[in-house]
Amino acid sequence: MCRVDHMAHIDIKAQDALTAVQLEVLNSMWRRCAGRVILSTTLAGSGHPGGSLSSLHILLVLYSVMSHRSDEPLWAARDRLIVSMGHISPAVYGVLAEFGYISEEQFLTEFRRAGSSCAGHVEQGVRGVEWNTGNLGQGLSVGTGARLAQELSGSPGKTIVLMGDGEQGKGQIAEARRFAFKYKQAGLIAIVDRNHLQIGGATEDVMPVRVREEYAAAGWNVIYVPDGNDFQAVFKALRRAWLHEDLDPARPSVLVARTVMGKGVSFMENKAKYHGATLSSDDAKKALAEIGCDPGLVDEWAKRRAARKISSCRGSEPGRNGGACWPRIDIGGPVVYTGSADCRSAYGAALKDLAALNNLPGATPKVIGFSCDLESSVKMGGFRAVSASAFFEAGIQEHHAAACAGALSHEGFCVFFSTFGVFAVAETYNQHRLNDLNGTHLKVVATHLGLDVGEDGPTHQSIDYIGLLSNLFGFSIFMPADANQTDRIIRYVAAHPGNVFVGMGRSKLPQVTDMSGALFFGKDYVFEPGKADWLRSGGKATFMTYGSMVPQVMRAADILAGEGLSMCVVNMASIKPIDRDAIIKAAGIGPIITVEDHIPQTGLGSIVARVLTEEGVGGQRLVTLGVSRYGSSGSPEELYKMQEIDAAGIAGKARAVFD
Amino acid sequence: MCRVDHMAHIDIKAQDALTAVQLEVLNSMWRRCAGRVILSTTLAGSGHPGGSLSSLHILLVLYSVMSHRSDEPLWAARDRLIVSMGHISPAVYGVLAEFGYISEEQFLTEFRRAGSSCAGHVEQGVRGVEWNTGNLGQGLSVGTGARLAQELSGSPGKTIVLMGDGEQGKGQIAEARRFAFKYKQAGLIAIVDRNHLQIGGATEDVMPVRVREEYAAAGWNVIYVPDGNDFQAVFKALRRAWLHEDLDPARPSVLVARTVMGKGVSFMENKAKYHGATLSSDDAKKALAEIGCDPGLVDEWAKRRAARKISSCRGSEPGRNGGACWPRIDIGGPVVYTGSADCRSAYGAALKDLAALNNLPGATPKVIGFSCDLESSVKMGGFRAVSASAFFEAGIQEHHAAACAGALSHEGFCVFFSTFGVFAVAETYNQHRLNDLNGTHLKVVATHLGLDVGEDGPTHQSIDYIGLLSNLFGFSIFMPADANQTDRIIRYVAAHPGNVFVGMGRSKLPQVTDMSGALFFGKDYVFEPGKADWLRSGGKATFMTYGSMVPQVMRAADILAGEGLSMCVVNMASIKPIDRDAIIKAAGIGPIITVEDHIPQTGLGSIVARVLTEEGVGGQRLVTLGVSRYGSSGSPEELYKMQEIDAAGIAGKARAVFD
Repeated sequence: MCRVDHMAHIDIKAQDALTAVQLEVLNSMWRRCAGRVILSTTLAGSGHPGGSLSSLHILLVLYSVMSHRSDEPLWAARDRLIVSMGHISPAVYGVLAEFGYISEEQFLTEFRRAGSSCAGHVEQGVRGVEWNTGNLGQGLSVGTGARLAQELSGSPGKTIVLMGDGEQGKGQIAEARRFAFKYKQAGLIAIVDRNHLQIGGATEDVMPVRVREEYAAAGWNVIYVPDGNDFQAVFKALRRAWLHEDLDPARPSVLVARTVMGKGVSFMENKAKYHGATLSSDDAKKALAEIGCDPGLVDEWAKRRAARKISSCRGSEPGRNGGACWPRIDIGGPVVYTGSADCRSAYGAALKDLAALNNLPGATPKVIGFSCDLESSVKMGGFRAVSASAFFEAGIQEHHAAACAGALSHEGFCVFFSTFGVFAVAETYNQHRLNDLNGTHLKVVATHLGLDVGEDGPTHQSIDYIGLLSNLFGFSIFMPADANQTDRIIRYVAAHPGNVFVGMGRSKLPQVTDMSGALFFGKDYVFEPGKADWLRSGGKATFMTYGSMVPQVMRAADILAGEGLSMCVVNMASIKPIDRDAIIKAAGIGPIITVEDHIPQTGLGSIVARVLTEEGVGGQRLVTLGVSRYGSSGSPEELYKMQEIDAAGIAGKARAVFD
Repeated sequence: MCRVDHMAHIDIKAQDALTAVQLEVLNSMWRRCAGRVILSTTLAGSGHPGGSLSSLHILLVLYSVMSHRSDEPLWAARDRLIVSMGHISPAVYGVLAEFGYISEEQFLTEFRRAGSSCAGHVEQGVRGVEWNTGNLGQGLSVGTGARLAQELSGSPGKTIVLMGDGEQGKGQIAEARRFAFKYKQAGLIAIVDRNHLQIGGATEDVMPVRVREEYAAAGWNVIYVPDGNDFQAVFKALRRAWLHEDLDPARPSVLVARTVMGKGVSFMENKAKYHGATLSSDDAKKALAEIGCDPGLVDEWAKRRAARKISSCRGSEPGRNGGACWPRIDIGGPVVYTGSADCRSAYGAALKDLAALNNLPGATPKVIGFSCDLESSVKMGGFRAVSASAFFEAGIQEHHAAACAGALSHEGFCVFFSTFGVFAVAETYNQHRLNDLNGTHLKVVATHLGLDVGEDGPTHQSIDYIGLLSNLFGFSIFMPADANQTDRIIRYVAAHPGNVFVGMGRSKLPQVTDMSGALFFGKDYVFEPGKADWLRSGGKATFMTYGSMVPQVMRAADILAGEGLSMCVVNMASIKPIDRDAIIKAAGIGPIITVEDHIPQTGLGSIVARVLTEEGVGGQRLVTLGVSRYGSSGSPEELYKMQEIDAAGIAGKARAVFD
């Protein structure tokens, strides 16, 4: 069981069929790996043995033909494999053990134990895993992103995405198919493990998906593999796709491989319950005997597992296994704005600068742009004009776009993903969550936030982005107050790895000035995460605000100053991390009034409340102003007035604090 | 312009073509409605005239043939029309004015003005609008839900969904297509306005979608309409779908209607910019002249608009226009649990009871269940066994399922939508947001919340559901502490309208008892939103917790009691609304320690911090315990220990408060 045969790489280009010797090697590998599927799940008492056995032949052929290095998992020229149905981890880990990425000992003694990297769904903590999956339907998008990285960098490799058939229902897969077709990703090969079973039973009963018809309708080359548990059949079909034999050479290809859930264990075959049910110790012994392994391994490994201590007791950390280094980005010099300007135009100009400085003719571009049919509104036109090949238009397919862009960022590209706030965050939250778990570096720049959207009404008004993104541990949240601060923040985030959200409204804003009338975010200003900007000082109380509300608050402060109430105004451009010291300082001055074009219960108001109580200065009066009900369709100024967060409304609420 | 012709309803079954008189009537209606499209957008200075003119012929044919009553918009036997691309509001409102639902005066003087119901994207505030749209790609799902309502109640009507072609890229449409095919929704007719343009330009450039091939691949009847701006062609195609002439009678049908954006105004036709650009006053006059309207209307209506005051100055409220009455639900008697039990089994048992009591043979069922391939895990099997025809299995297609279930709830059914937390909330947040804007009554019951998910790992661990749903004004959030409280809460929510989230973990929990050892949520317990449960009293400090953490906190309290530290334990089963008095009372006792299997920054910890500061009792010490980083794959007890929210960890943190 523990011995690993000498592995001869199979050259898929050089031979049109597997040799008898190669088949024998594959069969012996299969026996060991199938044994590991049974052992790992039985020992853990949970996991997914059925689908693992269903996919095992495919995985073994893939690792035999792909270019990859177990001693250098991040080898740039490797073929990528994204396993979309992360629950087949027992098969994936077993094969990775077979090919020398991890030890069988680690897998069998640690699988599904707290703190181990051998997690229930595949995670990058295991060497050789490219992408953490678990939530279904995102893998093909991730594959298109990995494929873009190969194409942009001229890598010789291919990208392969292995998917289940249950997940073919997910709409995001339809989106990814179209993207791959549009961008002629001929080097992308999808494989659907078509065992016709999902958790709830037969796929035809739970939700019929006409898999082959759908891929064909989307313009893909479709290859049907009548027996996906036959090494030779899988190899020959894969070779057709690999070489584009008799297929359209400009199109991506899919293998739809008819397989058997639980393949190789008579009493597990074609039983949906084994999607997520494990064998008892006795049944596992019977299964091992059928597979051709020693049934005694069950007891032997149970003992070794009991004796094993997990060394690193940690939570899952965003994976970095498949990730490349962050590129060196030339951020250029600041653009200084003096008149009124919209932040999104400043974003567009900075992005265009970044393209000109970093995407040089003949070289791999470093800065990438993704839009979802809103290129003009999010001001990516300049970027596109300078660097057309680094711009990707994903259409009205935000779920796909967010996952694809995230995957590309993980490959060492500085990727900007831009659309309106409701699509950039509310619609795609779960894609960003999976990106974050994967340690991506996506720059989500959302425009059209808040009631500032105006006449397009409540469906388009993003008033929850802080509340949502605060749940993602890896995300920073920055909200510039004017065009100058936007310019500096965009350049800052381009130069730094990690996931970040930069948000802005739709309208033009005046440039923020200091008491002397000079630009607050002038040419010498340097953006610093976690640092608040004290725009105005005062003795009575402090306004804390950000983004589109800054001009309203400044006007409110002017109104109150005229009445003898001198207020501090603090711009919290860095929402996450937050400037705790600024909040403590403000609490030392007097009441704090937060003002935002966002729901205060989940926005800055909530954050300030939490810091005050955590820091033991919660006795200070806190008033949280913001969006208190769904917005309407009208001009931003009218909408602010309706919700009493226009200058007059803010001044009125502040005045009431002192009544 | 203002005169409305006498409208003769056209009987689509009785005639196979429009008569010359009918065509003349339609043409004169078109002139008025096209004029309103131009006038409304020019006067508002924003809006979407191009797509409105593209769809106008289709809308006029629909309203001529549909069964509907302008004096009784909610007439139960009506045909439903869902307009998925809500931005064509100028056409929709114009046609509704033509058919007597609203006044032309209201539309032209209020369109896109704050506080008016004539919002930028169609909203139910306008009589005759069935569903608020704006975010693309959800309309077909909503249509399948409306269609289910017709089928379940035996309504004679059909459901028609009008969509744009740009939105055909959205994956959710692929999901909805499959659902409609699976459930043989022959009475559902989709119409795609195929003008081949979207915001970014030609659909083939932005994102090619092979619309007809995709619907055909999904098993739909596909009818191509070569000229979708020709009344006769639209009528004849619609008749084919309506009568299933020469079409598979068990399948839904789609009309793909080739149209021209900006149709009828020479200088607007086939120009993508008119998706979202309006005409100047001068150009509007030229356009009106071309259409056959008096150009003087521009100035005349501008004056009337300037003089108009919006009477109801309000934000958009969740719409109730298309909604039916909440059914009377017999909630039966409580089931009392004594031993350890999982909340999801108690949910399943209560749901089965509700089915038996309310879904009577031969009658329209009142209680409906939706699952996404997790029927067994979410314990809906009993419900399905009792009431198979009221159970809908949507497959791994959560976006569709959430929108479809929401739409059905809006039609007066008590709909339970159940899946794991990550799919029930994180994946489908934006569907719930749109549901909430539409005033739905969906009962989202999520299982497998928190680290309690265990070995399936971080992709499956929902630790953000409060943080997300707190952004939706219409949602309540309830978190039962044991099987008994689950039973009462499920029965409570079945009897009450409104959107609600009920959440639970995976594991079995002991039944909560009072100091005497009696069941805390015994047979006389009545659940009350906004009321906390004081499980234990004490003098030193207060634990506030909910759900799966209750047993851990109770054990921690026992540990501390043994050390002489007497702690209150308060169960906050009602997270939203929150019991503010309980928090104030706790602050009067001593420090507060919140404990949750959730991120405290966005969960109960955050809510308590906010209440303390808002109520001016924020000086009290607050410690917020919970999930502070992404979880791992392991047993819940191990995972709790790693994040120091097991009983020992909680006791340790509490002890430190007094050090």
